[in-house]
Amino acid sequence: MAEFLTVLTMTDSREKALDLARGAVDARLAACAQVGGPVASVYWWEGATETAQEWQVVFKTASARYDELEAHLKGAHDYETPEIIATPVVRGSAEYLAWVTQETTAP
Amino acid sequence: MAEFLTVLTMTDSREKALDLARGAVDARLAACAQVGGPVASVYWWEGATETAQEWQVVFKTASARYDELEAHLKGAHDYETPEIIATPVVRGSAEYLAWVTQETTAP
Amino acid sequence: MAEFLTVLTMTDSREKALDLARGAVDARLAACAQVGGPVASVYWWEGATETAQEWQVVFKTASARYDELEAHLKGAHDYETPEIIATPVVRGSAEYLAWVTQETTAP
Repeated sequence: MAEFLTVLTMTDSREKALDLARGAVDARLAACAQVGGPVASVYWWEGATETAQEWQVVFKTASARYDELEAHLKGAHDYETPEIIATPVVRGSAEYLAWVTQETTAP
Repeated sequence: MAEFLTVLTMTDSREKALDLARGAVDARLAACAQVGGPVASVYWWEGATETAQEWQVVFKTASARYDELEAHLKGAHDYETPEIIATPVVRGSAEYLAWVTQETTAP
Repeated sequence: MAEFLTVLTMTDSREKALDLARGAVDARLAACAQVGGPVASVYWWEGATETAQEWQVVFKTASARYDELEAHLKGAHDYETPEIIATPVVRGSAEYLAWVTQETTAP
C-alpha cells in the first residue's frame, strides 16, 4: 500500500471548497490542498443525465491519516454522499514527501 | 487490482468534452464525469514542441467497466489516438463507491 | 510497479508552468504535459493556514524516465522544495501508451 495519497472531493461552490481545504489543513489531516474549478459534473439522476457546476479539492496526505481525513470531510461536507476517493502516490521527491509527513504529524 | 478507477481523456473543445462525458454516463459506463479546462497541452510533434488548448474529461467507474468504457471512448472520439489512461482508486467513502457500483451496473 | 506514470508539480505562474512543461517535453522526459490553473493552494505555514495562487503541470511519462524527470524538474524549478509526486497508470489505450513509450525513448 502506498504511503502517501491524493484525496479528491467535490462541492458546489468555490467558498465551500476553500472551507473544506482550510478545515483539513488546519486539523493537520492534509499537508496541503488545491481548489480548482469550476468544472462541469455530469451524472445520472432519476433516469436522465444531469450537469452541475462544481469545484474540486485535492488533498495531499499520508495514508496513515486517510481514515481521519475521510471522517472529517464527511462531517464538514453538506452533501449527503460526497465523493471522497484516494489515489496512491507511488514516486515523489523525497524532500517533498518528508514535508507531507511532517505537516500531517501532530506536534 | 483496484476495484475502481478514474479514467482521463482529453479533447479540443468544451462541447466535445461534454459530449464524451454525457455519452459515457448515458451508457452507464461511468457513474459520473467532470469536464475541466481549458488546459494548455504541450507535446512533441514532428521535431518541435507544440502547445494546444484542450479540455479534460475525468470519469469515475468500476474497473469491471473499463474495457467497455475505453472501447466506447475510442468510438466516440474524433482523435486518431486519443489519450485514455486510468489511475486506481485505493481508498474511498464506502457510500460513494457503492453509488459508483450501482450507477455502472446495468438494471 | 506501473509502467506509466502521471507526474504532478505546481508553480506560481502560468509562464513558469509552461516553461516546466516545455522543458521536460523538449528533453523527451515526458510525452506530453498539461498546464492547468489557476488553482488556490492551501497549506500550513509558520503556524497558520495560507492560501496562494498556483498553476499545475501534469506530465505523462514512462516509469523508466521518472528519476530523470524528477531531477530535471528540481533543476528547472525555482521553489526550494517543489511538489513532485507520481500516480500510477494501471490501464490505458494500448495505442496511446505505445506513443508515450516512443516519445520518451531517445532516438
